[in-house]
Amino acid sequence: MSEYATSTDVLVVGGGMAGLAGALALRENGANVTLVERAPEFGEVGAGLQMAPNASRVLKRWGLLEKALEIGVQPKHLVFRDAITGEELTRQSLRGEFEERYGAPYVVIHRSDLHRVLLEGCEAAGVKLVNDVMVESVETVNGRGIVRTAAGVDYEADVVIGADGLKSTLRPLVATDEPVSSAYVAYRGTVPITSETPATDLEDVVVYLGPDCHLVQYPLRKGELLNTVAVFKSPSFERGEEQYGGVDELQAAYKDCVPAVQAALANLGTSIRWPMYDRDPIENWVAGRMVLMGDAAHPMLQYLAQGACQALEDAAVLQDVSAGTVFTADGVNPAAWDEALTAFNSARAARTARVQRTARVWGESWHVSGLARTLRNLLFKSRNDNNFQYNDWLYGSAGEGLPTPDAPKVASAASA
Amino acid sequence: MSEYATSTDVLVVGGGMAGLAGALALRENGANVTLVERAPEFGEVGAGLQMAPNASRVLKRWGLLEKALEIGVQPKHLVFRDAITGEELTRQSLRGEFEERYGAPYVVIHRSDLHRVLLEGCEAAGVKLVNDVMVESVETVNGRGIVRTAAGVDYEADVVIGADGLKSTLRPLVATDEPVSSAYVAYRGTVPITSETPATDLEDVVVYLGPDCHLVQYPLRKGELLNTVAVFKSPSFERGEEQYGGVDELQAAYKDCVPAVQAALANLGTSIRWPMYDRDPIENWVAGRMVLMGDAAHPMLQYLAQGACQALEDAAVLQDVSAGTVFTADGVNPAAWDEALTAFNSARAARTARVQRTARVWGESWHVSGLARTLRNLLFKSRNDNNFQYNDWLYGSAGEGLPTPDAPKVASAASA
Repeated sequence: MSEYATSTDVLVVGGGMAGLAGALALRENGANVTLVERAPEFGEVGAGLQMAPNASRVLKRWGLLEKALEIGVQPKHLVFRDAITGEELTRQSLRGEFEERYGAPYVVIHRSDLHRVLLEGCEAAGVKLVNDVMVESVETVNGRGIVRTAAGVDYEADVVIGADGLKSTLRPLVATDEPVSSAYVAYRGTVPITSETPATDLEDVVVYLGPDCHLVQYPLRKGELLNTVAVFKSPSFERGEEQYGGVDELQAAYKDCVPAVQAALANLGTSIRWPMYDRDPIENWVAGRMVLMGDAAHPMLQYLAQGACQALEDAAVLQDVSAGTVFTADGVNPAAWDEALTAFNSARAARTARVQRTARVWGESWHVSGLARTLRNLLFKSRNDNNFQYNDWLYGSAGEGLPTPDAPKVASAASA
Repeated sequence: MSEYATSTDVLVVGGGMAGLAGALALRENGANVTLVERAPEFGEVGAGLQMAPNASRVLKRWGLLEKALEIGVQPKHLVFRDAITGEELTRQSLRGEFEERYGAPYVVIHRSDLHRVLLEGCEAAGVKLVNDVMVESVETVNGRGIVRTAAGVDYEADVVIGADGLKSTLRPLVATDEPVSSAYVAYRGTVPITSETPATDLEDVVVYLGPDCHLVQYPLRKGELLNTVAVFKSPSFERGEEQYGGVDELQAAYKDCVPAVQAALANLGTSIRWPMYDRDPIENWVAGRMVLMGDAAHPMLQYLAQGACQALEDAAVLQDVSAGTVFTADGVNPAAWDEALTAFNSARAARTARVQRTARVWGESWHVSGLARTLRNLLFKSRNDNNFQYNDWLYGSAGEGLPTPDAPKVASAASA
């Protein structure tokens, strides 16, 4: 019998999207999984979330895609507009050829809904979920991860998954870096769609690109809600002031935008403003039997809408690298974890680094002004619908880091 | 008999490309034309010149295109490359479909050769050419232009054409503006093409685009000479120093460029460096019976290679608006000049203003760095050969300001 309160195959630290996905993925392999979460309840704050095919394919493998589709929306297009003129710059159809090419739908869904789908998936699969657990340290002793908590209730497991987000407590085991501020601040909001709601783009994800600002709108909950995100460069945030990104700055940031954008600011909740952080990519996520995933490993700016998507990809790869090695027909083979973690790290780090870096440049291209804006607009307008040059690397099956024989051929297109 | 030394139908001030073209155009209509030039001899300094179809069409109407083709070169392509990587960004084939579409060839020719073709055209047509004449003033008296010179030999004419270039003496009659400095400086040079000359792009106009610099190369004289132009932002010119744009700055400006570009700097003559000026567009070029044309009316930056081309267009329109009105089957009708000059001004000013403005932005897009360079390169690479979106407005027949019934349809494409 163990000297620790709880002994398990897998301990997951963090009950956000990444932690739930990682727990479910390994539970699917037959592992005994315990997930500990600091908060007294499981849940998600925030508004909508875009689930691209590289993420919805993962839900599909777990049999959860239908539940997500029941409550989410499959937008018709992703539309980019200039925020100053309202002019359409380019659009990508998200159904039909797009969905066929990537083998799964593009879904927009409330963050709390996706979180609940994953939570219910974990519950149904038999993941042990524990709240109110503040992890203080993880160390590897004799091939087991030993997790000590603030309450003194310690855990031991063959592997500890650090899925504790941007401000990860476990990341210092592999890196000494700090989150990188982007000087941008977001406001979010969801409002009911009524007969008063302007009808333009209501079935699409629309992104208005402005100098030092952008605004994203899309429907949620079967089209009952309108989700709005406004992201702008905050002078006070840039100056490092504690009271940054106020509503006055929000209004000022969009003053030159078309009426549709200005009117959409009224849909934002103004009690929370979200500072935008990411981190520089790191190569190693593994310390003994602790491995990072999700934002703890590779927090990214939101411009590619890939934060949760990459966490789901992480989970899928974790599932794949441990199936048949750690989790065999003859039972659990903990010794195989070392190789599996190396394989996971190696399959994922280069890819997520590319997503992190591309998200930065992609976001930068959204916020340009002057000649660069002219060039950006001409470039976007030169693009045709269903030109997948900039999509394949991200949404294609190779995205999971594992070659899929029947996957569509993925072009080695340059990142934006 | 006139009280003036010389009385004529048309007096042209300035013996550069614009003046010769204007003189020839009106002589073609049957006018008696005198052209006065300040310099003791006619001639042109500088190296190569690009004659786009909108200009070669004008030579063609005067029967001079064959002479130009005898000594010029018809390049195969216009090729844009990134100066830092050498990567090809886009190319436009200049023969075949291009030539058919615009009804005339793209020709590169030594400036002095084109000048001589026009000069010989004037001589053969009977334009009276006079050197060593320094014009001091023009005024309109009783519907005649009175031109006073430094030597006291005055002229009178029904119309006086001010074709006296960037630093025009006559422009103050219509505008009080000054030339606008672009902070860029050019070095030019022609060297023989030998077996040692690198073979890349030798039959093309190739433009290397770099941050704050570019380099243009093309063959001249039936491929015997290689023409090189290097244009870079000069910090000392920007600071307004008298000794600006030295060879040290030239070398420094290209230090990050590919070897092909660095090697090409050796082909430049370093005794003359050319500061790049233009002026802001003005609407009115007419004062009584004086009218500006060419650089005196609309000096432009060289990025569209349209300085001489627009002067030739001016001349063609001047020819057209006065044919049958001023110059009739029954003889000269000077009273019609007022209306003809208005028609000329109105046909030309908006177009040349667009060329002036587009040349500025186009040049700016050549010299960008960072994200704007990435966007520019992606935009250029997204373009296909024989996509005439950015060419039609400039090279199409509507370019002459006169609808041509059998001309190819000219798209109203946005300027770059």
